[in-house]
Amino acid sequence: MRSQPGLGALIVLEGAEGVGKTTQLRLLADRMRLAGIPHSRVREPGGSPVGDDIRRLLLDPSMSIVPRAEALLFMASRAQLVDTVIRPAIARGEFVLADRFFLATYAYQIAGRGLGAEGVVAANDFATGGLTPGMTLLLDLPDGEGLGRIAARGEHDRIEQSGDAFHARVARAYRDFAAPAWQAAHPECGPVALVDARGAEDAVADRIWGELTLRWPQTFRLVPESYL
Amino acid sequence: MRSQPGLGALIVLEGAEGVGKTTQLRLLADRMRLAGIPHSRVREPGGSPVGDDIRRLLLDPSMSIVPRAEALLFMASRAQLVDTVIRPAIARGEFVLADRFFLATYAYQIAGRGLGAEGVVAANDFATGGLTPGMTLLLDLPDGEGLGRIAARGEHDRIEQSGDAFHARVARAYRDFAAPAWQAAHPECGPVALVDARGAEDAVADRIWGELTLRWPQTFRLVPESYL
Repeated sequence: MRSQPGLGALIVLEGAEGVGKTTQLRLLADRMRLAGIPHSRVREPGGSPVGDDIRRLLLDPSMSIVPRAEALLFMASRAQLVDTVIRPAIARGEFVLADRFFLATYAYQIAGRGLGAEGVVAANDFATGGLTPGMTLLLDLPDGEGLGRIAARGEHDRIEQSGDAFHARVARAYRDFAAPAWQAAHPECGPVALVDARGAEDAVADRIWGELTLRWPQTFRLVPESYL
Repeated sequence: MRSQPGLGALIVLEGAEGVGKTTQLRLLADRMRLAGIPHSRVREPGGSPVGDDIRRLLLDPSMSIVPRAEALLFMASRAQLVDTVIRPAIARGEFVLADRFFLATYAYQIAGRGLGAEGVVAANDFATGGLTPGMTLLLDLPDGEGLGRIAARGEHDRIEQSGDAFHARVARAYRDFAAPAWQAAHPECGPVALVDARGAEDAVADRIWGELTLRWPQTFRLVPESYL
């Protein structure tokens, strides 16, 4: 499939720590490549020289950063990524796959750090300049299951070191986002689909592809089994 | 004069490039020291390890930063400075002297970079968490005079390299801020006094002290001539 102006959109994978976002992003990109759908991948914070510098700052365990400064650093990186990478790619007709976007800001900064929702949403609106994801796939696991996977990992960055209560608040926020009432109150997040993240990686990837087929039936057709 | 809880406030010196803010901040700090008024000085961006990192990033001429990311980086540094330095100092009863604050954001980001006023003000409100300067002294020079002083300097950082048209817009914005109508529309800036920045340094310093005497007559009394 060739790039077509007007076709492109931002697709976001979201979810609490340990739900398998990174694995699913890789599987989704593989399937889109096999299906010939033009796409690129981004991660936050990062994706530009200034974004990479901000990333280093945010993850540095020796750095003491107050919650509002942390939120604004994420947003600065997002503004740079939107203007220099995401908007140009969408304008070329590509799908951009993002590892987290709006929901992460709401989960980590509002629920996790306890910042006021109104201020975070206003600052985030400024950062994105009105860009709305075409689709957000919210990976969901039963309480505690994702954190268990994380605990099994080794080193932790500054944000991963924020404590169990913090991560429990973040995980609970992600579950709240699945409610239709929450989504109705947040049109800036675009459509959000809840995806059951239990079971085999390929089964989860099938569910994600199914949601994308519902959203863009002309583009995300069934992939022949022989490709997988 | 001993520190007294409830006495402290944020005093901001503002103005376009070349109006003499740095010199006047030094003279004001000298006079406050002689008068025994507890005070400290801050600069933006900077004032903390994370703020200093942000400063380095913002002034690096090799760094390409889009306007909204630039604004958010300034605001991240401001949030850190407010929470870790300015609020604690005011709570101890000190006056905090700042080289620029709100007005600089409005002048550089809205007038200079052309960003929408509403978004910048909302993001800035988030960054400061509701802190309002007790007094802003807006140093004013006739059009072009300050820029002439700057041109006479040597090296220029990334923001100083933004071109004559940019700096002319910034200078014009600073003159607009002097209008009572503008100030009435921006209560978050607190009281703003326009100070004529022409003439000898000590004459300008006298005008600044006079404004502070009007604002805090019990604290900023006349300084005996023998001190100066």
